[in-house]
Amino acid sequence: MTIEMGWNRYGKARVRVVKIVRLPDRHVIRDLTVRIALEGDFADAHVTGDNSQVIATDTMKNTVYALAKDGLTGTIEAFGTLLADHFLLHRQVERATVWIAEHAWHPMPVDGSTSPDAFVRDGSMTRTATVTAAASGATIEAGVEELSVMKTAKSAFAGFPRDRYTTLADTDDRIMATKVTATWRYASGTTDLDHDAAFGRVLATFTRTFAEHVSLSVQQSIWVIGKAILEAEPAIDEIRFALPNLHHWLADLSPFGLENDREIFVSTTEPHGLIEATVRRGE
Amino acid sequence: MTIEMGWNRYGKARVRVVKIVRLPDRHVIRDLTVRIALEGDFADAHVTGDNSQVIATDTMKNTVYALAKDGLTGTIEAFGTLLADHFLLHRQVERATVWIAEHAWHPMPVDGSTSPDAFVRDGSMTRTATVTAAASGATIEAGVEELSVMKTAKSAFAGFPRDRYTTLADTDDRIMATKVTATWRYASGTTDLDHDAAFGRVLATFTRTFAEHVSLSVQQSIWVIGKAILEAEPAIDEIRFALPNLHHWLADLSPFGLENDREIFVSTTEPHGLIEATVRRGE
Amino acid sequence: MTIEMGWNRYGKARVRVVKIVRLPDRHVIRDLTVRIALEGDFADAHVTGDNSQVIATDTMKNTVYALAKDGLTGTIEAFGTLLADHFLLHRQVERATVWIAEHAWHPMPVDGSTSPDAFVRDGSMTRTATVTAAASGATIEAGVEELSVMKTAKSAFAGFPRDRYTTLADTDDRIMATKVTATWRYASGTTDLDHDAAFGRVLATFTRTFAEHVSLSVQQSIWVIGKAILEAEPAIDEIRFALPNLHHWLADLSPFGLENDREIFVSTTEPHGLIEATVRRGE
Amino acid sequence: MTIEMGWNRYGKARVRVVKIVRLPDRHVIRDLTVRIALEGDFADAHVTGDNSQVIATDTMKNTVYALAKDGLTGTIEAFGTLLADHFLLHRQVERATVWIAEHAWHPMPVDGSTSPDAFVRDGSMTRTATVTAAASGATIEAGVEELSVMKTAKSAFAGFPRDRYTTLADTDDRIMATKVTATWRYASGTTDLDHDAAFGRVLATFTRTFAEHVSLSVQQSIWVIGKAILEAEPAIDEIRFALPNLHHWLADLSPFGLENDREIFVSTTEPHGLIEATVRRGE
Repeated sequence: MTIEMGWNRYGKARVRVVKIVRLPDRHVIRDLTVRIALEGDFADAHVTGDNSQVIATDTMKNTVYALAKDGLTGTIEAFGTLLADHFLLHRQVERATVWIAEHAWHPMPVDGSTSPDAFVRDGSMTRTATVTAAASGATIEAGVEELSVMKTAKSAFAGFPRDRYTTLADTDDRIMATKVTATWRYASGTTDLDHDAAFGRVLATFTRTFAEHVSLSVQQSIWVIGKAILEAEPAIDEIRFALPNLHHWLADLSPFGLENDREIFVSTTEPHGLIEATVRRGE
Repeated sequence: MTIEMGWNRYGKARVRVVKIVRLPDRHVIRDLTVRIALEGDFADAHVTGDNSQVIATDTMKNTVYALAKDGLTGTIEAFGTLLADHFLLHRQVERATVWIAEHAWHPMPVDGSTSPDAFVRDGSMTRTATVTAAASGATIEAGVEELSVMKTAKSAFAGFPRDRYTTLADTDDRIMATKVTATWRYASGTTDLDHDAAFGRVLATFTRTFAEHVSLSVQQSIWVIGKAILEAEPAIDEIRFALPNLHHWLADLSPFGLENDREIFVSTTEPHGLIEATVRRGE
Repeated sequence: MTIEMGWNRYGKARVRVVKIVRLPDRHVIRDLTVRIALEGDFADAHVTGDNSQVIATDTMKNTVYALAKDGLTGTIEAFGTLLADHFLLHRQVERATVWIAEHAWHPMPVDGSTSPDAFVRDGSMTRTATVTAAASGATIEAGVEELSVMKTAKSAFAGFPRDRYTTLADTDDRIMATKVTATWRYASGTTDLDHDAAFGRVLATFTRTFAEHVSLSVQQSIWVIGKAILEAEPAIDEIRFALPNLHHWLADLSPFGLENDREIFVSTTEPHGLIEATVRRGE
Repeated sequence: MTIEMGWNRYGKARVRVVKIVRLPDRHVIRDLTVRIALEGDFADAHVTGDNSQVIATDTMKNTVYALAKDGLTGTIEAFGTLLADHFLLHRQVERATVWIAEHAWHPMPVDGSTSPDAFVRDGSMTRTATVTAAASGATIEAGVEELSVMKTAKSAFAGFPRDRYTTLADTDDRIMATKVTATWRYASGTTDLDHDAAFGRVLATFTRTFAEHVSLSVQQSIWVIGKAILEAEPAIDEIRFALPNLHHWLADLSPFGLENDREIFVSTTEPHGLIEATVRRGE
């Protein structure tokens, strides 16, 4: 029985690039974190130490900065495509994956208007894109991370099975709090899609549905929200969620002679539930 | 020569409390992290292990939850005062310090209106308050943390001394990026101040001044901004800043035959400058 | 075209359990972080909100604490198996995955001996195990995380291709620093293996090979180390590595009139290379 | 009433320097994080934007790398003194403070010996030093951070006052777990002290005393340990501790029909107690 190389991938992570777009009347900040990974004919690099096919990760970093100069002019999906296609030009590369996170900066509000050259970071979420390019075609995914949301009504969890180790009571009115990670895949053949507009529409559907639906569990919320997004956005094939259930436990105030009718909660992050699920178009 | 107890303080940190205020037409979320520290006659607890004067930190935690029930109805400055005064009632406590950070949640936008019971966390900054209560009176401080801001124009750094180890070039146009920690102290005798309104005014002055001033250094920016805040807000005695200088280095694109006229920057966090300074009223 | 549920999984993460084993002459600390995830017939829970098959994640947490009482007596692989098998008893569960990280505590050294009941945390690495149980059988994986290692000799990187964006010079003597994440899978039919002893042997092979081999790249190091581990340990089928390349750049001291012959380095974490690869037994 | 500059300080933080000492038979790694802060005549820099006295923080960074070349040959206390004295040479500097954290790397064990050029990071604690230099003299402090320790016996907490908000029960046998931050000041006139040896002795006294004493509270433990260190080490004037009380709560297994006689604990980090105290020599 021999020993051999299995699946492998390599690249550069946490490349931090900021581009200042100097328009006539104002500046625009593009602030990205980029990660690149290549798959392909790299077995020799491992087994014999032959680096002749190994594009240095330092070169990848340089490429991000260089291509940002003229190529970062639109969506992160477009810039990711530019980068992935660039690396795919190398014969030994079979698949190039480019992840990009964009950190939003808004012009500072000043006396009812906005500053042309001072900005405040919007830490409420991070927008992401992943482009995977191969000879057989490219896949574009978009997503959101670090989006903390909470429902203080219309959230229940009841009717779950009870065994020897079950102590949780049924509830028809609990807090549901989570920090959303979601990723959706655009169907192939949607290359002329306006990815900025699509992102905005997905976020609006997420927000409206999250707010309005009656949640019977985090699982069911994912279905309701995911279904609403796919119904609203024909260009999307599939959406995946990873939602921690960040428990808010009712504080026990009875030892102090106080009632606590869903008013005072202990906010926790450890342990937490974690619900991962995909909603997709069927055949 | 003897050995003795010196300065000491103890308490509870990272108490996480969420209060859901259930108004007739909508909910409001109050989401706080509280820290309590007591100073006083605790030498015996250390030296002899006599705990008869040691208010358990577990009791402090319970007190936060219990007092939040009826006492968390207004500003965090008011709730901090309530807590600090409560602990000062214990004879052995000479000084009670209560730090509070409030995490902002905004109603979700839904079709031009807002949801009554779904919320999104605003991660753009954290508002803080510190109340220190002693027999001689109380001090109230307010502040802001985790507020990331950037100037892409009107920022220079030149004319600094050059020695054997100086390689930095003078620049009349650099990026200035920082994550603001600021704390200001309200003058005694301003107990009827509306701390929410004052916070809003300080933030607005900060924002406007940050955007409009021409910065010659982070140091000078602190002076200009701090002075503007003290001039606008008579109730404030003193303001302290701790500003990291989060360097954005111009990427060297010349090896690639590309010009880079202040367009593409490498964003860094390590190492960083750190400027700490106080602006205050004189005699 | 319909919309349907795709792959999904749910469970509890960051369950923190500490067990104090009270031996006659000394204590032993077991300090674990556990994560549980279940896959199976949960589509209804999503689509209709029927929770009748949804084992509450709170019940999972309780189960960890309850089973630790009598069941955490040996390796984390054995405890993971106990937990995974427990959840597999539920008819709706098709696959149960249990990840465990063990945090090591060593008895405190005291005057040449060791304390029976005082301990210091060994922060040099975290040992992990993952048990995946299904009707078709179980898979046991073991691993290590957060193990920082460095080679200050016998590390080169040269002969890589040069394109327009390549500026990195060839080097035959560089620092190689990484924080190891490695995971290896035990072959089925090795259920009577002593997983503690096997872990120790893998770590010793890793250490010796890391120290002694001449590295031509991180990729080639993975091959050499992975091959050595598979050769030494017949019970292991496959090993996967994820190794960041934590660059140490030679500080440029020439502006100060100083030579720097591989002596003074700038340690960085951002950006970093990231090499992921699998070494396995072939047919 | 005028507005004026108050206390201020500036410098460079998180300067990461690694020095490889190439001895004939083996290498030694010095891995430091350095922070520098200067106080002095910098009011003009703030008020008028005159940078003629502002040593650039970039120059500070360069100085760390340059002086490490020939000056980092002994203890971090000596290197901190070298750096602080260097900055004090500038006329406008009244006080220079240099903090250094040293990250320990041990030679890799290989077949009963150790490697000359492969190393593993010891993550069990970080050693620190702070040198403060002024015209009036220098102060040298040393310390330790990130040292996690636990007592599973000889730890009680009882006899504390009970009020309306007290629910914690007295206990004569609890777990005490903490992550130690300690800083001690060497007396002036101890400049010929071997700081490496002194650090080793302090750590050994800490360890032995932590293990052997009967703790009546975290407060009393600080006193017992601090006193032991000052008694053993005449060169130390004062020692300060900041000890979180990382609660380990007995898991309630009674709903599952199981006893839990101090065996299974829920490990928590939030909220936590925090005890800060100084033990010092008296008059």
